[in-house]
Amino acid sequence: MKGVEILPVEGIPEVRPGDDLPALISRAAGDILRAGDILVVTHKVVSKAEGRLVDLREVEPSAFAKRFAVEHEKDPRQVEVVLRESRRIVRMDRGLIISETHHGFVCANAGVDASNVPGEDRVCLLPADPDASAAKIREALASRVGEDIAVVISDSFGRPWREGITNVAIGVAGMNPLADYRGEEDPYGYQLAASVLAVADEIAAAAELVMGKTSGVPLAVVRNYPYKPGPGFAQDLLMEPSRDLFR
Amino acid sequence: MKGVEILPVEGIPEVRPGDDLPALISRAAGDILRAGDILVVTHKVVSKAEGRLVDLREVEPSAFAKRFAVEHEKDPRQVEVVLRESRRIVRMDRGLIISETHHGFVCANAGVDASNVPGEDRVCLLPADPDASAAKIREALASRVGEDIAVVISDSFGRPWREGITNVAIGVAGMNPLADYRGEEDPYGYQLAASVLAVADEIAAAAELVMGKTSGVPLAVVRNYPYKPGPGFAQDLLMEPSRDLFR
Repeated sequence: MKGVEILPVEGIPEVRPGDDLPALISRAAGDILRAGDILVVTHKVVSKAEGRLVDLREVEPSAFAKRFAVEHEKDPRQVEVVLRESRRIVRMDRGLIISETHHGFVCANAGVDASNVPGEDRVCLLPADPDASAAKIREALASRVGEDIAVVISDSFGRPWREGITNVAIGVAGMNPLADYRGEEDPYGYQLAASVLAVADEIAAAAELVMGKTSGVPLAVVRNYPYKPGPGFAQDLLMEPSRDLFR
Repeated sequence: MKGVEILPVEGIPEVRPGDDLPALISRAAGDILRAGDILVVTHKVVSKAEGRLVDLREVEPSAFAKRFAVEHEKDPRQVEVVLRESRRIVRMDRGLIISETHHGFVCANAGVDASNVPGEDRVCLLPADPDASAAKIREALASRVGEDIAVVISDSFGRPWREGITNVAIGVAGMNPLADYRGEEDPYGYQLAASVLAVADEIAAAAELVMGKTSGVPLAVVRNYPYKPGPGFAQDLLMEPSRDLFR
């Protein structure tokens, strides 16, 4: 088996609301991409192009947001935005808000983030529908590259029990985000019972290794990974509430 | 920046208790490794070499293990082993046991697993001290390859809220498993506040892309990733109980 390559892609200019991101991406990555590649796109450029930025000066915090903000030395306007982006609070303790977003992702601050955003008093939200955003990028690439490319939109989430954040997939197009080995046999003839791998999350994590956090590389190509093409969505990565022991 | 490469390494024979794994690994990977590489080793070969296998026919389940097993159609002897490998139960519900191992990892079944183990009625435990195991492999490689190599021992863990398992680091030697960007500025001059990346977990996840689950590739080389060399341990990835909202 050949190795998997993770290639950084530069050449995306500062993205502004209303920009045609799929076209910008096609231009930057079009000559690099080959059939079978996966393109990983950091969500921030997607959110910016889609205008998912909030000017905090225009936000009126609720009494609930104000009280939490005062207690924990937060910006009440930013807390308000986090609450608006949440459909359910999972934990609200020690100054942290872990909530479920309207898409169903569980993460800190509903994905609302002030880093890598131009201008003061401005925060960035997650894309409204990251699977749809991934599909649009994939369509633009298909017409330009003329080959089969999968797209993963990534963000970095914390997790319980372990320090640090890691990149995960919040939007997927053109591939199954899960690789299901259940029923297959290991080399000893043992039927694998619990082996569904979240490969889209592993691909997003691999891409982070070339993206960095301050270097402003918003795209990475993952090459030679034999993913299962076809329809697939990051929504498939969300655990059924009935199976979740950590609601 | 050059891309990151993930290379599968084959040529490890069936590993048996008492085998000199660092020597086997040096032989298999010695000619491939270069200075600055990270070698990812799946924990199962480490556990096997260290004799961390349990013959279930020799396990006498406790009354507690028996009751849980009957209720959820499990093997009471395997439940007993899971309890013995646990220092604390985090959740025990719907037939699942999520526990904290004696090392401090929180995962399903305390990492006890029947897949990829030869012989019936046999299960595999996590290595007793995966950081020490990683350090031993690193020493063997240093004397053979004569260059600086980091080592990551991996296992695949589930996580709350998201479907599927992903590879994480349970043993580390020769690198800092966390990349701390706090205090650095993004391209807009915003000081990053929450940006500590669990890069050892991302490296383990990337390696899984060439290891597969049934193909029996126990080693992968991660090349061209500019990690921070020096002392570092997977223990550094464990969250302080006082900061953990999901105990």
